[in-house]
Amino acid sequence: MTNSSSDRSALVLFSGGQDSATCLAWALSRFERVETVGFSYGQRHAIELDSRAKLIDGMTALRTEWADRLGESHTLDIPTLGVISETALTRETAIEMGEDGLPNTFVPGRNLVFLTFAAALAYRRGITHIVGGMCETDYSGYPDCRDETIKALNGAINLGMARAFEIHTPLMWLDKADTWRLAEELGGKGLIDLIVEHSHTCYLGERGARHAWGYGCGECPACSLRARGWNSYISAESST
Amino acid sequence: MTNSSSDRSALVLFSGGQDSATCLAWALSRFERVETVGFSYGQRHAIELDSRAKLIDGMTALRTEWADRLGESHTLDIPTLGVISETALTRETAIEMGEDGLPNTFVPGRNLVFLTFAAALAYRRGITHIVGGMCETDYSGYPDCRDETIKALNGAINLGMARAFEIHTPLMWLDKADTWRLAEELGGKGLIDLIVEHSHTCYLGERGARHAWGYGCGECPACSLRARGWNSYISAESST
Repeated sequence: MTNSSSDRSALVLFSGGQDSATCLAWALSRFERVETVGFSYGQRHAIELDSRAKLIDGMTALRTEWADRLGESHTLDIPTLGVISETALTRETAIEMGEDGLPNTFVPGRNLVFLTFAAALAYRRGITHIVGGMCETDYSGYPDCRDETIKALNGAINLGMARAFEIHTPLMWLDKADTWRLAEELGGKGLIDLIVEHSHTCYLGERGARHAWGYGCGECPACSLRARGWNSYISAESST
Repeated sequence: MTNSSSDRSALVLFSGGQDSATCLAWALSRFERVETVGFSYGQRHAIELDSRAKLIDGMTALRTEWADRLGESHTLDIPTLGVISETALTRETAIEMGEDGLPNTFVPGRNLVFLTFAAALAYRRGITHIVGGMCETDYSGYPDCRDETIKALNGAINLGMARAFEIHTPLMWLDKADTWRLAEELGGKGLIDLIVEHSHTCYLGERGARHAWGYGCGECPACSLRARGWNSYISAESST
């Protein structure tokens, strides 16, 4: 293993959503050099990718040490994820979709693909630490969000690339209200305002109407989850 | 886990090279239904992908039960692998390349990416068994070819997709001469002739001159390895 955890550089999986924006702030508070990587695969919420530049501009304006630490922003195109999600289902799999309650366009193991590509990029960039917003608390039945999965993949990647990568998932055990609180700890109200204004969560890829918690359709599971988390964060605050 | 090893369908990672052609014959001899997947990522040996159709035509002509078992042939485009291989190297990584003795365009963890995409496709197709030609015996220093890596990834994929995939690597402990012998066991001289004539191994992506062992530049590491294996296979045969 030629890398070591003494290396203080990190690569953050950064989609432009609330979770990955919080992860970026978390990484900028801990590591000396931080790069970001976003993935493009024809997802409906491609608008997330546009949020990235605004969030990065805002964060670098918020803290000079964050500006000093922030390095390259990468985007990797993975059209195959879209192709696989449209691959004709066999009868067997079609039945399983029902059992799992997962959408028909579910891309199995999407986070395995993201983290493996991120590690390949980190290898080429000489970066040891990889940061992702995977979260088991609110997870919607996706097994590739689970802590056990991420730890197993970390082991497989380290064997497969002969490196000592450390995958960090600071949101793994937080709910959405905790994530808002973490953002406030890291960057104060300035970061909260930035995430509300520029981070994108809505499944429908709509900027939509402005709500207290940000923009979106307000109806889809992602908007509902984000709204519930925001309300619980705000009410807990006002009660203290 | 909704799949089970009683499922008799397999997905073979099929590049059109000698190893994956032998793996396809191996799978056709064991499983009731076999699909293939090839990956396109702008590799210089893209000619391998052209070999696939000829090898499949030849194998289905060779054995009627193979023709009955052979299902869809998939191709997944992964342009990002090419992008990552050209990603500017940091000083640190540049030094490591020297230590590792790996080429400058080394794509770290390429087999992790291939197997994860293959598993995602197998998930969508309702296929349990995944077959790849990874081999530790002749491995050129690529840690993602090692048995330990493949087993760890199998575990991570099964956790991440909540399935009981079985990754098979029938060539893991064979040398190139053993691989020719395995092909003969599976499909006789007919399969040997087919692999010699249509499988492609050359790094340079050249059809090149016709040698006893097939076509290629005859100089690159892949051609040399294939030629050495062929000669040892033939000499062992003639001495018996």
